[in-house]
Amino acid sequence: MFFKIDRNYFIEEINKCNRIIDYKSLSPNLTGILVEVTAEKISLISTNSNFSIKTSTNNFENGLEIKEAGTMLIRGKYFLEILRRMDDEIINISKVETNLITLSGEKSEFTLNILDHLDYPLIAFREKGTVVELDSSELKKALNQTIISVNEWNQKIVLSGLNFSVDNDIFYVTGTDGFRVSRKQITLNYPLEEKFEANIPFKGVHEIIKILSEKGLCKLVLQDNYLSVLINETIFQVNLLEGQFPNVNSVFPTDFNSTIYVENKKFVKLISRADIPSEENLSTVVNLILQGESIFIKSNIQLVGSFEEEFKEFELRGLDEQNIYFNSRYLLESLKTFETKTIEINFIDAKKPIVISSSEDLSLSQIILPMSSN
Amino acid sequence: MFFKIDRNYFIEEINKCNRIIDYKSLSPNLTGILVEVTAEKISLISTNSNFSIKTSTNNFENGLEIKEAGTMLIRGKYFLEILRRMDDEIINISKVETNLITLSGEKSEFTLNILDHLDYPLIAFREKGTVVELDSSELKKALNQTIISVNEWNQKIVLSGLNFSVDNDIFYVTGTDGFRVSRKQITLNYPLEEKFEANIPFKGVHEIIKILSEKGLCKLVLQDNYLSVLINETIFQVNLLEGQFPNVNSVFPTDFNSTIYVENKKFVKLISRADIPSEENLSTVVNLILQGESIFIKSNIQLVGSFEEEFKEFELRGLDEQNIYFNSRYLLESLKTFETKTIEINFIDAKKPIVISSSEDLSLSQIILPMSSN
Repeated sequence: MFFKIDRNYFIEEINKCNRIIDYKSLSPNLTGILVEVTAEKISLISTNSNFSIKTSTNNFENGLEIKEAGTMLIRGKYFLEILRRMDDEIINISKVETNLITLSGEKSEFTLNILDHLDYPLIAFREKGTVVELDSSELKKALNQTIISVNEWNQKIVLSGLNFSVDNDIFYVTGTDGFRVSRKQITLNYPLEEKFEANIPFKGVHEIIKILSEKGLCKLVLQDNYLSVLINETIFQVNLLEGQFPNVNSVFPTDFNSTIYVENKKFVKLISRADIPSEENLSTVVNLILQGESIFIKSNIQLVGSFEEEFKEFELRGLDEQNIYFNSRYLLESLKTFETKTIEINFIDAKKPIVISSSEDLSLSQIILPMSSN
Repeated sequence: MFFKIDRNYFIEEINKCNRIIDYKSLSPNLTGILVEVTAEKISLISTNSNFSIKTSTNNFENGLEIKEAGTMLIRGKYFLEILRRMDDEIINISKVETNLITLSGEKSEFTLNILDHLDYPLIAFREKGTVVELDSSELKKALNQTIISVNEWNQKIVLSGLNFSVDNDIFYVTGTDGFRVSRKQITLNYPLEEKFEANIPFKGVHEIIKILSEKGLCKLVLQDNYLSVLINETIFQVNLLEGQFPNVNSVFPTDFNSTIYVENKKFVKLISRADIPSEENLSTVVNLILQGESIFIKSNIQLVGSFEEEFKEFELRGLDEQNIYFNSRYLLESLKTFETKTIEINFIDAKKPIVISSSEDLSLSQIILPMSSN
């Protein structure tokens, strides 16, 4: 095995693979990155118990010049550290013995031990199945806006990740922990005939967010119990969560008694003042009282003190009386997912969930269950 | 007690005091910040077992308007969090009960519990004694350049901090852990008649670095077993380390067999390549071989691999043969303290300390003991 490649490009690719490696793995080979060099291309593969990644580069792209095919299993962490300390634009990698490679630039030369690639598991990457094509940045935004409602450690396994589903030409991303629901809709370019339903584990969602770029398209491919995300020459494949995701449509209230329209930034600042940090860094219970032309926000934290503020910069539709208690963090996290100038908070009464939305962007809804006043 | 003050300014001052508080202290009162308001000024005081800080503001400066004098002991951490979440330019603070204050802006009002100031220790801040006046940024730089050789956990207590001493009109800052020495000289505006010798504990040095500003002067005041650093209206007072600091002048070699002149940035990059990270993140032994017109840098790390590079971009004075082993981290840390373009590395032989200096800045010297080749 012998090839040349652009150093900065190689750092990026190894970094993608290195990020998912579980260095606490009991099998030392799983802490390696498999490098497969054929006459046409080089592929890097890494895996952990939940997901796998494969990223490829064709010969003559990104400075790649393949002189001799072969396979090696490198220690990604050290490789990255070393590559970052080198100066050269192009580096040479060559296998000198079964378990030894040289990594060299113009003047410096590293001789590095490698792992045994024969012990590496064979990973099947699925590129065919039910396909949904999406704008990368739109999907990235949707994941960031909905992951807030997911509790990674939820005892109900199916809730410990995000749900992807398609209804005709609408792609839904939904997250819930039982106390709140985040839902985002993305309109597809064409309706999908097949059923598409996948539950992506929390950590997988965060990895997908990292590999999604700001522009271009990505493909989601569903097959068996796997979802593959294809972006250019990179495939990220995740094992899905098992179970039936609850039908959250049924919890979405539609008839409201009061709707307040506020400038989101101001409201976020107001609620963050009420969210007084406590000794144990717990979230605060915030009391929102709508009374005529004022909203009073009150909170109280044992040992630290209390807060009160009168807020008048809002418009109201419907009933001008509400008295409702919230978890301050849930409210803050929901508000912060909106990039719109104004938002709407819809109330029924003190015991029914509130819905946060914005007429400037109908694709996103956040639902929060109120707390009991005691 | 009742006063108004500029919110951003108050955040800065509370932050200075909050930083040194030991929140693990068994005495809850020591986790507070003492606020003393007189007719003329407001002072904030905090302390831990090793150092204390007092920062004052005169009435009518920084938005301060004193309406009523008094004393309170506030929980700095919460105070900071709350102040940061407020919008107001000017805030009002007023004591309403023995253990309760209100903190208010135009619309929002916080009612906060405070601690009992009668239980707070009386701290004597020493502003008189043997005085040295220095440029703040020059002292800051000197501390950063010398602290690298200090081991906070050195069993020899006097070595667990930096030594300040004055000889005629030269102010010396010296640090050593027994394996290396860092020494910086600052020329005073006038010779000092009195003896000045102080050993500042590691953590105290880091606090001094933080409070020193980029411009202006600072005063160091030595009295009894305390050093006070005075910067504008802030006094930072530290308990000194006891013991006799070793006379490092005796270890400074003066006659060298070989001196190499190199561009510092290039040499730092070279040595950082040799400093291959190991599984336990230990430092590497680097072998420097000077042979005619080349320097060979070699290193070797168990399990990971080895490194070799030939380096020719240097000038030499003296003997063109040396073969010497170093701790890579010690060498790297020393090199990085130089802000000059070129540096000089002076050798005697494989067993004698090397001295790193620069003819562009004669105020700084770094000494490193070589390692044995086995």
